[in-house]
Amino acid sequence: MKGKLFYVGLILAFVLSAVAHYTHLNATLQFVISAIAVIFVAGFLGKATESVAHYAGERMGGFLNATFGNAAELIIAIFLVKDGMFEVVKASLTGSIIGNLLLVLGLSIFAGGLKFKEQSFNVKLASHNSSLMILGVIALFIPAIFAGGLTTKETSSMSLIVAILLIAAYLLWLLFSMVTHKDVLSDAAVEHGEALWSKSTSILFLVLATVMVAFSSEWMVGTLEEVTHKFGLSELFVGAFLIAIIGNAAEHSAAVMMAMKNKMGAAVEIAIGSSLQIALFVAPVLVIASFFMGGTPMNIVFTTYELAAIGVAVFITKSITQDGSTNWYEGLLLLVVYIILGVVFFLV
Amino acid sequence: MKGKLFYVGLILAFVLSAVAHYTHLNATLQFVISAIAVIFVAGFLGKATESVAHYAGERMGGFLNATFGNAAELIIAIFLVKDGMFEVVKASLTGSIIGNLLLVLGLSIFAGGLKFKEQSFNVKLASHNSSLMILGVIALFIPAIFAGGLTTKETSSMSLIVAILLIAAYLLWLLFSMVTHKDVLSDAAVEHGEALWSKSTSILFLVLATVMVAFSSEWMVGTLEEVTHKFGLSELFVGAFLIAIIGNAAEHSAAVMMAMKNKMGAAVEIAIGSSLQIALFVAPVLVIASFFMGGTPMNIVFTTYELAAIGVAVFITKSITQDGSTNWYEGLLLLVVYIILGVVFFLV
Amino acid sequence: MKGKLFYVGLILAFVLSAVAHYTHLNATLQFVISAIAVIFVAGFLGKATESVAHYAGERMGGFLNATFGNAAELIIAIFLVKDGMFEVVKASLTGSIIGNLLLVLGLSIFAGGLKFKEQSFNVKLASHNSSLMILGVIALFIPAIFAGGLTTKETSSMSLIVAILLIAAYLLWLLFSMVTHKDVLSDAAVEHGEALWSKSTSILFLVLATVMVAFSSEWMVGTLEEVTHKFGLSELFVGAFLIAIIGNAAEHSAAVMMAMKNKMGAAVEIAIGSSLQIALFVAPVLVIASFFMGGTPMNIVFTTYELAAIGVAVFITKSITQDGSTNWYEGLLLLVVYIILGVVFFLV
Repeated sequence: MKGKLFYVGLILAFVLSAVAHYTHLNATLQFVISAIAVIFVAGFLGKATESVAHYAGERMGGFLNATFGNAAELIIAIFLVKDGMFEVVKASLTGSIIGNLLLVLGLSIFAGGLKFKEQSFNVKLASHNSSLMILGVIALFIPAIFAGGLTTKETSSMSLIVAILLIAAYLLWLLFSMVTHKDVLSDAAVEHGEALWSKSTSILFLVLATVMVAFSSEWMVGTLEEVTHKFGLSELFVGAFLIAIIGNAAEHSAAVMMAMKNKMGAAVEIAIGSSLQIALFVAPVLVIASFFMGGTPMNIVFTTYELAAIGVAVFITKSITQDGSTNWYEGLLLLVVYIILGVVFFLV
Repeated sequence: MKGKLFYVGLILAFVLSAVAHYTHLNATLQFVISAIAVIFVAGFLGKATESVAHYAGERMGGFLNATFGNAAELIIAIFLVKDGMFEVVKASLTGSIIGNLLLVLGLSIFAGGLKFKEQSFNVKLASHNSSLMILGVIALFIPAIFAGGLTTKETSSMSLIVAILLIAAYLLWLLFSMVTHKDVLSDAAVEHGEALWSKSTSILFLVLATVMVAFSSEWMVGTLEEVTHKFGLSELFVGAFLIAIIGNAAEHSAAVMMAMKNKMGAAVEIAIGSSLQIALFVAPVLVIASFFMGGTPMNIVFTTYELAAIGVAVFITKSITQDGSTNWYEGLLLLVVYIILGVVFFLV
Repeated sequence: MKGKLFYVGLILAFVLSAVAHYTHLNATLQFVISAIAVIFVAGFLGKATESVAHYAGERMGGFLNATFGNAAELIIAIFLVKDGMFEVVKASLTGSIIGNLLLVLGLSIFAGGLKFKEQSFNVKLASHNSSLMILGVIALFIPAIFAGGLTTKETSSMSLIVAILLIAAYLLWLLFSMVTHKDVLSDAAVEHGEALWSKSTSILFLVLATVMVAFSSEWMVGTLEEVTHKFGLSELFVGAFLIAIIGNAAEHSAAVMMAMKNKMGAAVEIAIGSSLQIALFVAPVLVIASFFMGGTPMNIVFTTYELAAIGVAVFITKSITQDGSTNWYEGLLLLVVYIILGVVFFLV
């Protein structure tokens, strides 16, 4: 997919999926076309991220990617919250967290591990990521455990307070990792990627690619309901696996690309950073936003199945990343856990 | 609070709270006066601990502090067990464990981290502390999980046996850390604090300060019921947060003081050591003591809420301390978890 | 038990227990005789393993021992599955996992620690073992959590798929640890044990010892039901503790022997490797085998008690082994947890 051919494909697929969407083509066809478009724009986003990462440093690039990737998901989720589809939102948030930790990170580590015997990244970063993931797990488990003894109104208050605390913790994390302890967490030893374009063009393309991802993701998601009904899939499975995989296609391709260029620090930052952002920023923002939309607000109480999935994903990711070094087998372990979760979500 | 003024305040506040207690003053007033007294005597205990630590070595000093701090709690708890108030005892034990791990350690790491970019302590000690915390968690979780399938009598037997095993494990830990592997666990690199008094005066003041803490804590606790009823707080919240915070004021001020002098090893020893002592020594001693007091003995089965709180506190503390280095953000994470637990305990 | 006297005892005890078995002697007598035989043949297996380890390298020797040790258990379990005694099988698998992690490893670390102040082994190996143990825990917990929402048929499908995934993960682990990353995981620094016999004799004796262990274990297990009924023990306790302790006698003596010769890498490999093999290979093979035996197949859903026991065993083992170094107190902690579990299983 190198060179001009790629950009021809990119524009073609994107325009075609737009046409398919606005002319209300047959759903299955729309789905296939927009899926191809998503693959292309995700590839484009990967290239743009890499180019920006060249100028901004690896971690900042990874952070930008995580942010831009999740912007698409945030927008889609806000529309779902507006329609009161809280269960689908929570399922897709769950899917996004486990998808990033197990599928994106798993494939990155596996693919990188096939090329390089041992890949390493900043241990301090791994340690902080672990602690933040545990905060995320705690912030989701505690409300679920205590919700049984609370009224609906008390659950709402609890959700709102926990949401505010998580956002505060997330913003202070940015202060910590970008300002006060920037040097401690950076991967100084890793070489930088190639710059495809000038600094300003790279940034412009990053924004453009993100917008294209948001649009094509949404067109694809729009057809999902009809397509999945045809194939008899449950809402939980669709939310937690299909929507999540498609919504994270961007992080996905970018992270794997980074891993295969032996920049495991950036791949980890994209995958774990993205899931942290979902748990500590996107989910709380949705809870708070729901308070301003009228009707019953969305609480932060996830189901036992969702919590079990998030808990095991965090637990094995923590175990695999904590020594700051990875190999193909560790990637495979993450993928095995992802498949096990996929099977049980499919069956339930 | 330096110099003579401090000691004037200390004696004044302590005497006034004694007068308020024995003349049965208005409860709210008694509460405020004894709270001020607790702050002063806790400060005094901190100074005495630091002075003894100068002579005894850091870890031994930390151990002494943990022991003396918990002596007060043990005495209070024995009176509560005698009155059959098992639920309040367990709530305050829970509160003491999470208060030490999250509030005391969190504030120490946060305050120390604002002054020093990175603070470190003996990794071996962190690793052993983790394993002991996990033993504590296991010893509380297993009885709770199996209690459902046991009769009251069997639960009593189980509680007694587990209690004896925990005390044995704790005493052997002292043998291990003070005798056989003393050198491996000590923080040789850390400078010693200033000696305010001679060795024997330091020890005398340590004992005196502990006795004063015990008295003033008890006077304060005595007014708590009336005061909290006025403000409509639940027993669980009062036991797990108010009593625990006041009962740990001593460890609190001592640990934060140590952290701000860059003696993180001593701060960790005070905070984690104290919570380990509650779980592995104070709680089992109370269970065994209840067998000799007539009436139904107290079992070791904690509620789901209490176990959830202890579990998450241990889990995040383990994650943050295991690399033997801390910074302000890690302290903040502990505090965020403490606030989340405070909110849900308040609401339940 | 050195020299010729040992071999006289070995042959005598084995022959006597065979005679006792085939002449249908009084059950309690049979039990005592076969127990003595098991101790002897396990000692023989330990010697043979050590001798083979001299030629094959420590880890390969450890792996061989784990495999040969579990061959006996696998054979016994297949007979139990054939008779539809699924609960006893699961109890003994649970007991085998926790017995290896807590009793075998605990005693090895404790005994080795009494002789050597600090014993160390490959940290990379410890880290990979941890991740694999977590996979095992996940693969047992997830089906149990989701089984409540599934039909019997769906539970069977789930069990089969999870079993296949685990076996695949285990075979790839062998590929990883024996081929692609053999050098990274080996304990190069450790000296090799003494060779008692020539290479081929050693291998022959290893096979012979394994066969003898299988026979004498089975004879002993055959008398267990009658003996335990006399003493009023529950099936759960017998499966999880008695059968497991006897079935793992071989790993037991071999691991302790290695630890006391300061080959902690081999001891860890035997104990953890054996429990991994039970969770990732023996259990799945039994699930799959049950599908080809007619009747209701065995599912992979363990009880809450069993999962709690496995969960805490893995959790504390991970904490103790993750720094790649051990001492007597860490061994003691594992033993304390084992005793706690023994008490609650006995009472339930």
